[in-house]
Amino acid sequence: MKFGAVSKYVGSILIVGAFLISPALILAFVNQEAALPAFGITFFIMLTTGLLLSKVIFRESIKTIRIKEGLAIVTFSWVFLALFGALPFYLSGVTSTYIDAIFETVSGLTTTGASIITDVEVLDQSILFWRSFTHWIGGMGILVFTIALLPAFGIGNFTMFKAESPGPTHGRITPHIKSTARTLYLTYFALTIVQIIFLMLGKVNALDASLLTFGTVGTGGFAILNDSIASYSSYVQIIIAIFMVASGVNFTLYVLLFQGKLKEVWADAELRLYLKILGVAVVLIMLNLVITHHASIIIALKDAFFQVASIMTTTGYATVDFNQWPAFSRFILLGLMFIGGSAGSTAGGIKVIRILILFKLIRREISKIHHPHAFVPIKLGNKIVSNEVVARIYSFIALHMLVFVIGTLLISLDQVDMVSAISAVAATLNNIGPGLAMVGPTQNFAFFTPFSKVLFSIIMLLGRLELFTIIALLVPQKWHIES
Amino acid sequence: MKFGAVSKYVGSILIVGAFLISPALILAFVNQEAALPAFGITFFIMLTTGLLLSKVIFRESIKTIRIKEGLAIVTFSWVFLALFGALPFYLSGVTSTYIDAIFETVSGLTTTGASIITDVEVLDQSILFWRSFTHWIGGMGILVFTIALLPAFGIGNFTMFKAESPGPTHGRITPHIKSTARTLYLTYFALTIVQIIFLMLGKVNALDASLLTFGTVGTGGFAILNDSIASYSSYVQIIIAIFMVASGVNFTLYVLLFQGKLKEVWADAELRLYLKILGVAVVLIMLNLVITHHASIIIALKDAFFQVASIMTTTGYATVDFNQWPAFSRFILLGLMFIGGSAGSTAGGIKVIRILILFKLIRREISKIHHPHAFVPIKLGNKIVSNEVVARIYSFIALHMLVFVIGTLLISLDQVDMVSAISAVAATLNNIGPGLAMVGPTQNFAFFTPFSKVLFSIIMLLGRLELFTIIALLVPQKWHIES
Repeated sequence: MKFGAVSKYVGSILIVGAFLISPALILAFVNQEAALPAFGITFFIMLTTGLLLSKVIFRESIKTIRIKEGLAIVTFSWVFLALFGALPFYLSGVTSTYIDAIFETVSGLTTTGASIITDVEVLDQSILFWRSFTHWIGGMGILVFTIALLPAFGIGNFTMFKAESPGPTHGRITPHIKSTARTLYLTYFALTIVQIIFLMLGKVNALDASLLTFGTVGTGGFAILNDSIASYSSYVQIIIAIFMVASGVNFTLYVLLFQGKLKEVWADAELRLYLKILGVAVVLIMLNLVITHHASIIIALKDAFFQVASIMTTTGYATVDFNQWPAFSRFILLGLMFIGGSAGSTAGGIKVIRILILFKLIRREISKIHHPHAFVPIKLGNKIVSNEVVARIYSFIALHMLVFVIGTLLISLDQVDMVSAISAVAATLNNIGPGLAMVGPTQNFAFFTPFSKVLFSIIMLLGRLELFTIIALLVPQKWHIES
Repeated sequence: MKFGAVSKYVGSILIVGAFLISPALILAFVNQEAALPAFGITFFIMLTTGLLLSKVIFRESIKTIRIKEGLAIVTFSWVFLALFGALPFYLSGVTSTYIDAIFETVSGLTTTGASIITDVEVLDQSILFWRSFTHWIGGMGILVFTIALLPAFGIGNFTMFKAESPGPTHGRITPHIKSTARTLYLTYFALTIVQIIFLMLGKVNALDASLLTFGTVGTGGFAILNDSIASYSSYVQIIIAIFMVASGVNFTLYVLLFQGKLKEVWADAELRLYLKILGVAVVLIMLNLVITHHASIIIALKDAFFQVASIMTTTGYATVDFNQWPAFSRFILLGLMFIGGSAGSTAGGIKVIRILILFKLIRREISKIHHPHAFVPIKLGNKIVSNEVVARIYSFIALHMLVFVIGTLLISLDQVDMVSAISAVAATLNNIGPGLAMVGPTQNFAFFTPFSKVLFSIIMLLGRLELFTIIALLVPQKWHIES
């Protein structure tokens, strides 16, 4: 491991982090809020640590980054940003322990949105701003990570099917990746600004509109009212729902859209399945609410649409207490948590494209019983998905389930009922936020032991960084394959 | 589809079925029980239908069976045996509806052991005998099906790793398969007789010992007392636990054992993992019971061993109400339900060997991140597992989970809580029997609607016949692969 390279990059990211904290710092200064010193100290610590790591401690010049350094840079960047980003919450007294502050920050940066704060309405504006802004930072981070960095390390496997994304480049950050990243930034910025404008048209003030938008386009879900989105107007709710859906779409499709390649966008198999699943889930839940809870069709449709959009895109905003919904609807939401949004979006979960390929594989095996000697390649659009990619997808899903099972087992030691344990781990691993029962949308994660909170933080990071990144970093590099 | 071949074989199996019902008929006659006419009518109907199907309706001579006929024969044999085998329960008034009787019989034949009978202690001996005997028949059926028939159709994929099993034979029942089947019968008989003797040494009368043994070696779990195995002596409980473990082992290993090939048996990777999982689960649950419930170590060890053996082998007997155990222990049991026993045993579930290969695949993908160009084949012992078999295993597990998810969704419409729905579907799909909460070991399946009972029956059959068999039969044969 070239520690110099890792240190240099992690340091640079901390310097960027210090500048990302400055809007909250300025807000605290303008409002003369109590959190001002907390932000000042954090800014100073982050900046000096960043400068020390990147400029002072290691001076070797870096030309290439290998896979293992890449994994370390990504993992340590998120961990360090979380550790430092937690300081404002802890130093300002918003959370009583540093672990609580770390949980909240990891939840923010991973765009999860699970909270340990019981009353957000009493918080300073600067604290609320920083809390929601972590979603926006995390959303941007994950776009760059999954669309630009992972393929560069030969790990990513979806974006290669889209037009604008780079292929494997043997460990070097090429100009191509940089330009892809720039396009993504711009798309992300554009989506953010358009949503803020639409919310302001609905009479939401500029600050609130910004915070709600950070939680939406980052598919995070931290709200600024205790009842999440429930007390906003239907217009605002629908705008948020639409932008949640938009944020769960592969961002490279927007690039195609801007280029006027409408046909290609609409031909995208993942997009189509994403919208189909969303539509079917909305209809099923609507019917369930109408039949079982005797809800009116219009209200049931609106609630179902908002909640399905929120859960499937792994945002986690709520307009109703869906924990009170019938078991059938709750199971659909639980299932959507695992499916998640599209690859190359800010959403978490397994991702629609992996589910799509899984279905194609099941289908192939069934047809093979009748035609045992047929060679049937798996295709996406008109491209064949290689066996390597198929194996990676299967293993990813298996590992995802394994982390889910182990996580649930460990959390169940914390005196919670089974549904709470299952849904809490599902909601953190897939980066949603609220789950069911004791972690339902009207509840929060405050009651868990510090052990569980640390575990949840690790689970959120594992989910966000697509598992293999961190796990590959942790296992010994010369792991003997005995098989 | 050659209906002649299907009819002939299904008819023959019904004739065998008629003779399999005769012990209960004789018992009812000797005891002069009220169920006598019910058994008499069933015997007559089964025999005449069998004769009609096999000798009269279709007369064409059959030389080879193709895959599709094979699938149809297997599926229809189970379905017909269940429909006719349900008659004694219905005609004798043990169940109030025919659907209840079908549920009970499917549960018996699939060696599930889920029951809709609330008080088994009032039943006639002949009814109890037939109920438990369906487990024994089902256990034998599944051995022949998975070890002899599936490989013959080129569908099975595990037994090829053992010494004595036949390879694919392109759709013809060869003498080799017949001899394998004969060896299996003998092993199954031997295991049955040895357990009966051991139980009789524990002062259980011959009839009760037989019925308990049918439920054990078939990994079924129908009991003859309302509290399952709880009121028997520790000796009897431990004997049953040991024989449950023995029945979850691949039966071809017993053939190797008789041939004195001890080293080969011990080298079997599936056997080792099976015992390891069992051991780890026992220790974890024991510790959980001691720490959380302050149980004594000896009692906790015995209860944990019995229950882990019962659930992992998918038997379903109970000595305690494990639904009262802490969430951690209940989650372990729920996990074991899905793992199940070994391939080529009478146990259900996904099977240990598939889990083993899944782990090897995850491990390979992790190591591939560091060594992207390494070619690492998956091995079992010193044999390489082909990519085809790997794909089949992955798809099997994915399909298993898909059926689980859809089943749970549909059952949740039946006004049950989430844990009941999840565990009821897990307990039927994996052929265990009791689940948790409303279907826990002290409860039963009587309260479900007829719709749910039919659904459970289908789920039990799907689980027992390894999914693809039935599903391949149901989908159109020329299913267009568009991928």
